[in-house]
Amino acid sequence: MTAPTGRAVAIVAGSGVLPRHVARSAENSGHTVFLALIAGSARADDYADFAHRTFGLGQFSGLVSALKARDITDVAFIGGVIRPGLLDIKPDFGLVKHWSTLKQAFRKGDDGLLGSIIGILEGSGFRVISALDLAPDLAVNKPGAVGKMSANVDARADIDLGLRVIEALSPFDVGQCVVISDGRPVAIEGAEGTDGMLHRIADMRRTGRLRGGSGGGVLVKSPKRGQDMRIDIPTIGPDTLRNAAAAGLQGVAIASGCVLLAEREQTIALADQLGLFIEATP
Amino acid sequence: MTAPTGRAVAIVAGSGVLPRHVARSAENSGHTVFLALIAGSARADDYADFAHRTFGLGQFSGLVSALKARDITDVAFIGGVIRPGLLDIKPDFGLVKHWSTLKQAFRKGDDGLLGSIIGILEGSGFRVISALDLAPDLAVNKPGAVGKMSANVDARADIDLGLRVIEALSPFDVGQCVVISDGRPVAIEGAEGTDGMLHRIADMRRTGRLRGGSGGGVLVKSPKRGQDMRIDIPTIGPDTLRNAAAAGLQGVAIASGCVLLAEREQTIALADQLGLFIEATP
Repeated sequence: MTAPTGRAVAIVAGSGVLPRHVARSAENSGHTVFLALIAGSARADDYADFAHRTFGLGQFSGLVSALKARDITDVAFIGGVIRPGLLDIKPDFGLVKHWSTLKQAFRKGDDGLLGSIIGILEGSGFRVISALDLAPDLAVNKPGAVGKMSANVDARADIDLGLRVIEALSPFDVGQCVVISDGRPVAIEGAEGTDGMLHRIADMRRTGRLRGGSGGGVLVKSPKRGQDMRIDIPTIGPDTLRNAAAAGLQGVAIASGCVLLAEREQTIALADQLGLFIEATP
Repeated sequence: MTAPTGRAVAIVAGSGVLPRHVARSAENSGHTVFLALIAGSARADDYADFAHRTFGLGQFSGLVSALKARDITDVAFIGGVIRPGLLDIKPDFGLVKHWSTLKQAFRKGDDGLLGSIIGILEGSGFRVISALDLAPDLAVNKPGAVGKMSANVDARADIDLGLRVIEALSPFDVGQCVVISDGRPVAIEGAEGTDGMLHRIADMRRTGRLRGGSGGGVLVKSPKRGQDMRIDIPTIGPDTLRNAAAAGLQGVAIASGCVLLAEREQTIALADQLGLFIEATP
């Protein structure tokens, strides 16, 4: 599903640099972009050059009115949000009627929660699209190496194993990123996030708990089977490469067409500089 | 498979207190126990009251002669060993002929490596048994709570989810321990081990990355489907309980009959003191 160009679209933005890049890419392909910033996650200062407004976590009616006033029907979510406690959300009158739905969704993990929010938005006449639909040029859309380095035979075997682990975890709201070293899964991403997981690998190398092995290891990142790309797009960026290098890895494998590269050009240049491969899997 | 009582048995011991407890339990049930201590992992001082000898990582002929001299055919492995580099192993003449087998096993992860060592031992006329066969009283053999506290309905749902995640990871050499919080897997154990994973949960609570949620969360530990209990027995002990409490968890669930409790009585008393449940799953 691609948003037709020249259309007014909204990006609900959490933390990080990714919402900016998606917004810029969407503008470049002719969209008129409105940024709905999530209070406490996205900072208004970072979006001074875009049409934007900040909304509290429970300000649903406010968001709906702002979108309708701008004739916007297409909405994409992007950026990080620290999972709030239910009590942190102050529902306005538009959200109150959906409160019991949201409360139930809270027990279902992040995916369940965002899925429920999407359901509520779509029930109110909006179409929720993936940020990838707005900025397909931020993904690597062709399988193969994107920088100077590429994966050797052993690294390819490790990548395959990593994809199988992610596939096995598909039914669960966890683990779209793993580290394989010497034919063995040594880390699976949980709530700590990719960078936290890479720091852990670096720590284990330092303390000798994990040996370098013959290759060093690879980071494998891919959406799960059936993953709703409107809810959660795997991403990598310069920090991922820096942390992968500090963890002694050989490279990073990402699913082609399904993983966003924040600061794409810098990320690829940095991989070359660090001697790491970035390999898009078929 | 239970070792007949009154028989001479060997325990190949790595680090930690567990080999001592298994040895004591085996003695109490009438076995004559010989401890083969792994150099660099088990300390001879800790085993002064047992018949013991220390063996280097590649000292295979030495081990075989020592066992034969004592009429021992049953051997169990227990305790931690930091995964060695291939170059750290100095093979004696008995091991040299198995060197290519071992080298291949090195690419297969810890389970593959130990499986290969077991194969070599069994090919030399020994029978490798599980430490659980020598010390079944160190496991919890009946489903249900073993201390004062027990899991509530929400915690039971989290335990079920944890068991399903472990089941899904069965084909891989990773993840026999997970933390579920509020219906969501928040950590899967990799090479960092259970305590490392629990420290991570505590860190995420401190930094606000992970909220306490309504319950707090549970640690679920279980062997994988088809796990070779001669190779790897999941264990918990006082440190597990202390770290689980520091991570804000409600309790610990273990598979009945398949998880060793190091310092069983102290572990259960500590759980009561900390207000945590220990629940054996069916």
